[in-house]
Amino acid sequence: MTVLVFIDPSVPAGRVADASAPQLSVLDQGATRGDGIFESALYKGGSVRKLDMHLARLQSSAQLSDLDIPGEDVWRAAVATAIAEYDGEARRVDAGTGTGGQPDTDVEAVVKLIATRGPEGAGHGTSWVTVSPAPALGREQRETGVRVLLLDRGYDSTVAERAPWLLMGAKTLSYAVNMAALRHARKNDADDVIFTSSDGRVLEGPTSTVLLATREGNEKRLITPTLRTGILPGTTQGALFGLAEEAGWKLGYGPVVPQDLLDADAVWLVSSVRLLAPVTAIDGQPIATDAELTAELSRLIDAIE
Amino acid sequence: MTVLVFIDPSVPAGRVADASAPQLSVLDQGATRGDGIFESALYKGGSVRKLDMHLARLQSSAQLSDLDIPGEDVWRAAVATAIAEYDGEARRVDAGTGTGGQPDTDVEAVVKLIATRGPEGAGHGTSWVTVSPAPALGREQRETGVRVLLLDRGYDSTVAERAPWLLMGAKTLSYAVNMAALRHARKNDADDVIFTSSDGRVLEGPTSTVLLATREGNEKRLITPTLRTGILPGTTQGALFGLAEEAGWKLGYGPVVPQDLLDADAVWLVSSVRLLAPVTAIDGQPIATDAELTAELSRLIDAIE
Repeated sequence: MTVLVFIDPSVPAGRVADASAPQLSVLDQGATRGDGIFESALYKGGSVRKLDMHLARLQSSAQLSDLDIPGEDVWRAAVATAIAEYDGEARRVDAGTGTGGQPDTDVEAVVKLIATRGPEGAGHGTSWVTVSPAPALGREQRETGVRVLLLDRGYDSTVAERAPWLLMGAKTLSYAVNMAALRHARKNDADDVIFTSSDGRVLEGPTSTVLLATREGNEKRLITPTLRTGILPGTTQGALFGLAEEAGWKLGYGPVVPQDLLDADAVWLVSSVRLLAPVTAIDGQPIATDAELTAELSRLIDAIE
Repeated sequence: MTVLVFIDPSVPAGRVADASAPQLSVLDQGATRGDGIFESALYKGGSVRKLDMHLARLQSSAQLSDLDIPGEDVWRAAVATAIAEYDGEARRVDAGTGTGGQPDTDVEAVVKLIATRGPEGAGHGTSWVTVSPAPALGREQRETGVRVLLLDRGYDSTVAERAPWLLMGAKTLSYAVNMAALRHARKNDADDVIFTSSDGRVLEGPTSTVLLATREGNEKRLITPTLRTGILPGTTQGALFGLAEEAGWKLGYGPVVPQDLLDADAVWLVSSVRLLAPVTAIDGQPIATDAELTAELSRLIDAIE
C-alpha cells in the first residue's frame, strides 16, 4: 500500500491521488532525464523523523540543481496529508482484520519527497510525496549486518570543488550508478557497497553514510568521511554526531582510507530508513564488529526526533 | 503534439496512449531512480534514420544495465505505430489549416525509445515510444554553430575498463549531470559543452559526439575520441565514418586532447537529432571553422539511412 499526495497550488494541503494508477507524464524530465531531486525519511512512532533536516537538504539539492521547488510549509502540509492518509489506510486494514482500530506504533514507513523539473516546456516542476511500508530487508540488516564491497566511484576526492556541474552533494534522481553498484555487490556475494575515490579515499554507500569507531582506553571516537570529497551530507550521520558528542564520544571527520575501515573497532552504514547496519565483511574478509557500540549508537539513533 | 505508444504484450503493434494525460506510475524506477535507458532517433523524409543502430545500442545499454527489455521486432512495431499516428495527426492538422492532405516531407521529429526498470517490486519494466516535433534550436545550430565550454567530467579516461558499475557506455536515463553541464554553459555565454577527463582527454558532449578534421595537402582526416575513454558510441559518428571513408577521408580514433581541438581545421558536435553543429568557439575563444568541410559532412549525414 502506497499513499500518494501531489503538491498542487489549487489544493493547499496537497492533492491525494491513487498511487496504483498512472499519475505522471511520460514527458516529465524526472522520468526522461533523471532530472529531479528527492529525500527518503522514516515514519516511525507516530512522527516523520528529522523532517527539518530532510527539508533543508531538499532545498540544498534544489539550489545545486537550479530547481525551483515548493517552500517548506507546502512540503510539510503534503507530508501531513500523506501521513494522515497512510494511518487511515492502516486503521482500515487493521479494522478489517480484527486487530483493532489503532495504528501499529511499531509501523515503519518510508516517506519520499520528490521534485522534478516537470514536463519539457511546461515551465513548472512536478512535486509529490509518497508513503510506503519500509522494506523488511532493511530491518533485518540492522540485526544481521551487511557484507560490503569497496567499489571505485571513478571520481577523485577533489572533484566537487572544481566541477559544480557534477552535482556532487545534491541528492538527484539520477541514481542509475548507485543501483548498478548495489546489483554488482549482490552478484558478488555481498549486500552493499562502500564507494572509494579514484585517489583511494573512502566516500559513502550508494544509499548510506559510512561511520567507523575506534576505542582507545576509555575514549570512543566516531569518524565519518569529510564532505569535501563531494559525498552527500548524511542526515542520520549529522543528527547522530550531535547526540554522540553529548554522550561523550569524540568525533572525527575523515579523510578516511580503506585501511582505516580494516583497522577500526567497528564500521557501519547509516541511513534514514535502514538506520544503523553493522558492516561485517569488506571484500569478502570479515572485519571487527562491536555489539556494545552498535547497541549504544542504535539507542542514540532511536532518540533522534 | 506528442504521440505516445506503450509496449504492451496484449497489444502487439503497441498501445497508443494520450501523451498529454498522466500515463506513468510515480513508483516507476525510471522516475524515482533514473533507472532505465533510452535512444533518440530522427524521423525525417518519411523514415526513422538509423533505427537499426539505435536498436542495437538500446540492447547494449540494456545489457550493461542488467535490464530485460523487449526484442527488436517489438520496438519496430511500436515505432511504426507511433510514426503512423504522428503522420495521421500531422495530416489532420494540415487539413484543418487548409494546407493540404500530405505530410510535410520537410518535417523533422524526435523518436524516443525508453525502457525503465518499472515500478518497484512489479517484476517487469515499462517501455514506450514517443514522437515529438524536433526542437527548432537544433536546426538553427546546424547553421549558426555552437560555442562550447570544456568541462571536467570528473572521471579519468581509464575508468570504464576498471569500473563497469559506472555504466560508462550505457545511455541511461540518469542525465542530471548532462543537463546541469548544459545549464552551466548557457549561464556562461556558451551553447554547449565538451566534457574532458580528469587526466586531460577530450570525451564527448552531454548529448553529442565530438568530431574534428585536419587537412594536410589533399588529405582530409576525420577524428573522434576513442571509445576506450568510456564515452557513448555515437550512432551518427559511426554511420558518418563509414560514408566518409568511402568518400576518401582518412579516419582517426583519438586519444584527443584539448589542444587538438584548437589546432584542428574544424570541430563539430554530431548527434542524431541536431545532426552536425560546427563548433565556433571554445571557452570564449573563436576557433577555425571550415564551411566547405561542414557542407561536405552535412551531405554525407543527410545520406545516412
